[in-house]
Amino acid sequence: MEKFPITDKTEITRLAKRGVYDKETVYSILDEALFCTLAYVREGQPFQIPTGFVRIGDKIYVHGSVGSFYMRELRDRKHHACVSVTLMDGLVLARSAFHHSVNYRSVVIFGEPQLVNNKEELYKALEFFTEKMCRGRWNDVRKPTDNEWKETMVLSFDISEASAKVRTGPPKDDEEDYSMDVWAGVVPLKIQHLEPIADPELKIGVKIPEYLH
Amino acid sequence: MEKFPITDKTEITRLAKRGVYDKETVYSILDEALFCTLAYVREGQPFQIPTGFVRIGDKIYVHGSVGSFYMRELRDRKHHACVSVTLMDGLVLARSAFHHSVNYRSVVIFGEPQLVNNKEELYKALEFFTEKMCRGRWNDVRKPTDNEWKETMVLSFDISEASAKVRTGPPKDDEEDYSMDVWAGVVPLKIQHLEPIADPELKIGVKIPEYLH
Repeated sequence: MEKFPITDKTEITRLAKRGVYDKETVYSILDEALFCTLAYVREGQPFQIPTGFVRIGDKIYVHGSVGSFYMRELRDRKHHACVSVTLMDGLVLARSAFHHSVNYRSVVIFGEPQLVNNKEELYKALEFFTEKMCRGRWNDVRKPTDNEWKETMVLSFDISEASAKVRTGPPKDDEEDYSMDVWAGVVPLKIQHLEPIADPELKIGVKIPEYLH
Repeated sequence: MEKFPITDKTEITRLAKRGVYDKETVYSILDEALFCTLAYVREGQPFQIPTGFVRIGDKIYVHGSVGSFYMRELRDRKHHACVSVTLMDGLVLARSAFHHSVNYRSVVIFGEPQLVNNKEELYKALEFFTEKMCRGRWNDVRKPTDNEWKETMVLSFDISEASAKVRTGPPKDDEEDYSMDVWAGVVPLKIQHLEPIADPELKIGVKIPEYLH
């Protein structure tokens, strides 16, 4: 199993057993997540932006308008950045207040943003963005015009300095608490896709596509 | 409606119409979110930590072990910090790839962490943590011992420099695309609480509490 090297930034010191460095786990968390949070620094002050992203191979891609202030900041200043992703899998209800916890899978990546100039890479990233949101969608939609391409900025981050943190399973209580008459266990959480709502402006006669069933 | 002042850090410049500064909206997003992402800076490098939190009045509270490296960092260095929260409400499928989007509600708060020393405030924060996870839980569980209190650090952030960003509603396509034979609309997303899973070590005869039905 291929692993990321542990660095002073990615080493998990607190609850070290929750640290996971294998690529398979890190990539699976990234692929499931609908958005990431991007952090960067300006004059000593950290800023955060939640944004969509997609992983292709050993890189993640974020995109935005060329008019976006933070995208230009990231492009021009080559900030050190930090990207995080968190999936909440469950509420962990212990017998003691102290041992209440959550099941989660999170990833943190450290890196510098790179502007994607290569047209092929850019095109692929945007196709994958649409496909990540909804598999099968790219084939159906109007593709970007030259002007739309020009309005879109894509930045990539190498996934080289990265780690995951994962908690799974039931609560862990103190030995003497297991005999208490208190219910304990996990309430699993899941992101549910509800029934699609058609655009009120939808052209009459257009059917909902197979991939949304 | 009470509003947060707009500062150079909280002003939303890109898609300004999505910026929301009223307290009611900001607080409702914070109260619904299960976790926040905390960003701080060490030697020019941004770090991020996803963590549980609770809002009480004009403050949010995070907690952790006194042995936690980042909690001690935040306490000792009085870092400028940034806290963000994001709720994903829906996938917005437009007729063009370019106008694909998501419906979301996010909040960003800027501030400096304060160590909570006051016992009453500390106790209340931890009670609210448990109650936020599962209303009614606090009454059932074993309360913290003196030692557990000593092992727990709580930090607060004033919610004074804060803003929200919100997108709702159907896709916004280019005028000429509305006549296309492409389905468009929103796939709403919702965090679902699945059937609770009892701890395999659960004492025989302990029933699942009412508040989990």
